[in-house]
Amino acid sequence: LRALFDLPDGLIYLDGNSLGPLPRAAGEAVGRAVQQEWGQGLIRSWNTAGWIDRAQAVGDAIAPLVGAGPGELLVADSTSLNLHKVLWAAMSLAQARQQAQGTSGGAAQRPQRRVLLTEQVNFPTDRYMADGLAESRGWTVRAVPGDALLPALAEPDVGVLMLTHVNYRSGALHDMAVVNRAATAAGVLTVWDLAHSAGAVPVDLKADGAAADFAVGCGYKYLNGGPGAPAFVWVHPALVNQVEQPLRGWLGHAAPFAFETAYRPASGIARYVCGTPPILSLTALQAGVQTVRAADALGGMAALRRKSLSLTRTFIGACGPVARAHGLRLLTPLEDDRRGSQVSWGCPPGWDGYGVMQRLIAAGVIGDFRAGDGRGEPDLLRFGFAPLYNRHEEAWRAAQALADACSHTAGATPAARPTVT
Amino acid sequence: LRALFDLPDGLIYLDGNSLGPLPRAAGEAVGRAVQQEWGQGLIRSWNTAGWIDRAQAVGDAIAPLVGAGPGELLVADSTSLNLHKVLWAAMSLAQARQQAQGTSGGAAQRPQRRVLLTEQVNFPTDRYMADGLAESRGWTVRAVPGDALLPALAEPDVGVLMLTHVNYRSGALHDMAVVNRAATAAGVLTVWDLAHSAGAVPVDLKADGAAADFAVGCGYKYLNGGPGAPAFVWVHPALVNQVEQPLRGWLGHAAPFAFETAYRPASGIARYVCGTPPILSLTALQAGVQTVRAADALGGMAALRRKSLSLTRTFIGACGPVARAHGLRLLTPLEDDRRGSQVSWGCPPGWDGYGVMQRLIAAGVIGDFRAGDGRGEPDLLRFGFAPLYNRHEEAWRAAQALADACSHTAGATPAARPTVT
Repeated sequence: LRALFDLPDGLIYLDGNSLGPLPRAAGEAVGRAVQQEWGQGLIRSWNTAGWIDRAQAVGDAIAPLVGAGPGELLVADSTSLNLHKVLWAAMSLAQARQQAQGTSGGAAQRPQRRVLLTEQVNFPTDRYMADGLAESRGWTVRAVPGDALLPALAEPDVGVLMLTHVNYRSGALHDMAVVNRAATAAGVLTVWDLAHSAGAVPVDLKADGAAADFAVGCGYKYLNGGPGAPAFVWVHPALVNQVEQPLRGWLGHAAPFAFETAYRPASGIARYVCGTPPILSLTALQAGVQTVRAADALGGMAALRRKSLSLTRTFIGACGPVARAHGLRLLTPLEDDRRGSQVSWGCPPGWDGYGVMQRLIAAGVIGDFRAGDGRGEPDLLRFGFAPLYNRHEEAWRAAQALADACSHTAGATPAARPTVT
Repeated sequence: LRALFDLPDGLIYLDGNSLGPLPRAAGEAVGRAVQQEWGQGLIRSWNTAGWIDRAQAVGDAIAPLVGAGPGELLVADSTSLNLHKVLWAAMSLAQARQQAQGTSGGAAQRPQRRVLLTEQVNFPTDRYMADGLAESRGWTVRAVPGDALLPALAEPDVGVLMLTHVNYRSGALHDMAVVNRAATAAGVLTVWDLAHSAGAVPVDLKADGAAADFAVGCGYKYLNGGPGAPAFVWVHPALVNQVEQPLRGWLGHAAPFAFETAYRPASGIARYVCGTPPILSLTALQAGVQTVRAADALGGMAALRRKSLSLTRTFIGACGPVARAHGLRLLTPLEDDRRGSQVSWGCPPGWDGYGVMQRLIAAGVIGDFRAGDGRGEPDLLRFGFAPLYNRHEEAWRAAQALADACSHTAGATPAARPTVT
């Protein structure tokens, strides 16, 4: 399946968790969208080229990758904006449910469910959106360490849980079924961010007895949709018509071309559309999603997952000597069922991790550097492994290049420290 | 400048107010963004190809078209979403100002400014967003006919005016300077939707003594940015740092790559960024904006405006016979200073306007049909004239084609009625 991509010769690309590479089919698809659909079809292409249905068509192609059904998942806007929509909806639904319980009696003793629970270390957008919404709606955000999430779910004031499935720093993977079961038992609605999951690890949003409530995800990472590709949003079909989302645009209306004065949300996930979708970027995403779906014939996400785990395990092992020599600390869980599709090495304090990554990139191995917070979260060297196109040989060669870069970087501290490998 | 576009042979395209045509340079620019920037540069292109600065660069190219300064106007998301941001910000600012006045004494008698004033007939997204925000913030939307706006501005409970500069149905143009002066005198903040203005009629957001406060606009109409091109947002530089916007994404942070836990809005218009921009669609918009800026050397927006008025005047005149024969009513003002860059004919009740437009399109003249509301707003036939590529000959031929289509359409009422032409 590596042949589906146009990868530069000799480059080892381990940053598909930031931006997936170019699918060969994307160039042609975008070229057609520009020249034929836009150039020749002009405004008619909303109907004749299917532009008006494309966001749902791409959503339907993504859906099976995360255990969603047809018509349940939609492509729209950015991950940040979709998160805003589903958080607002989840908070509204939590309030409505509690109000209904309150009026049916017996729940008067219970404190108001106005806490949004989340994990301390998370991608900033998730936290910014949660904080902003909490502020405007009189909620509180409670951020706890990952291992304190399950007990925290049982607190009676928690209404919504917002969780990123695979942590963007460590690559640690939450057990979604366990969390969903605990949340549902506690009466808490779940909002999942699948940015580092979709296309990389199996996701089952509608697992039997362990279904999620809301989810969003990213188009330009493991789905290979191109820079700034639009994102996706999913709501459990049993909930989707129970609540609106707050960004009322004309294309999310029940009858957008009736141009009615009053807003009536569309039925189903179509209500999560806001304005007009960016067709060219959406078309590239369509080609990107097809690269992942091409694995269906070879075992699908289960097969991709097996290779992904083997790649990350291989890389972790191959990095053992350099990690010991330079005191790099493995932030990514060694246990297969707790590891996403990336490997993150924490840098010792004061060590020039940025310089090491720059040297590595200059040597043709692309990962990325993420700064620490100066309060315990270390600087890190991050390597994403995409089973569609990364090879075991690349894991070995990248480890060797990392060793070379570390040994040549000014400011690198050569002191050997014990690591978990 | 027509040579800048790839227009299908023989087609008369009068729907650039819905989707501008393909600039020849867009295909090459998007191809380069796909093959070189994404394919070869990969994640590095955020820096090496300037992706990270592109939204601001395109904003800076649009800015002079609407009287904005460099660094004041930014491309992001959709018109609907940008409207949400600026309406929320304007409402917040209006509340903050009144609170400040209240505490400085003397204003206790004044009613709360919690009314958002707008025009009755407006593009649905504007009204939906306004209604949604009003609902969640305890405001009221007051919609009045266009000619009642100035008196309504003087009501003491009005806090924000939201107005579309050129009406999407009638093509009527508001005198922005008059409205801004009246609003400022009344202590009302102005939010302008420039969807049908930018690139079509001159706009001076910072007119001396008549400046606007907030504005948004569309990329895919007269800016020729391609289907679903991202939109733009502008805030007066004296106000931009006084208030936040509500959609807190990581790229609108003061230091996005520091990945801080707490949100701090960027300084200036950069705080109106939310998530990662769709680079391919943004690149097409860049090429589209350049087609409008190519007119700079030939007299710029003033010259484009002269030709636009001449085109619409020519078309209105040429349609006189068919309008009289079929009872089409001109909804677009005849006065040059009240007319945007489109011509809209209202259909008689029960008349098959949709069928007429379909026949017209089949004959190679593309305009569009907009249904009425069954309560006084008629069905309409809408024709957008883009001075960059439309010709006077096309105005004459389109009028002739309209006459042919009307005379051949079943259900068309041939009764002659007086019209304003």
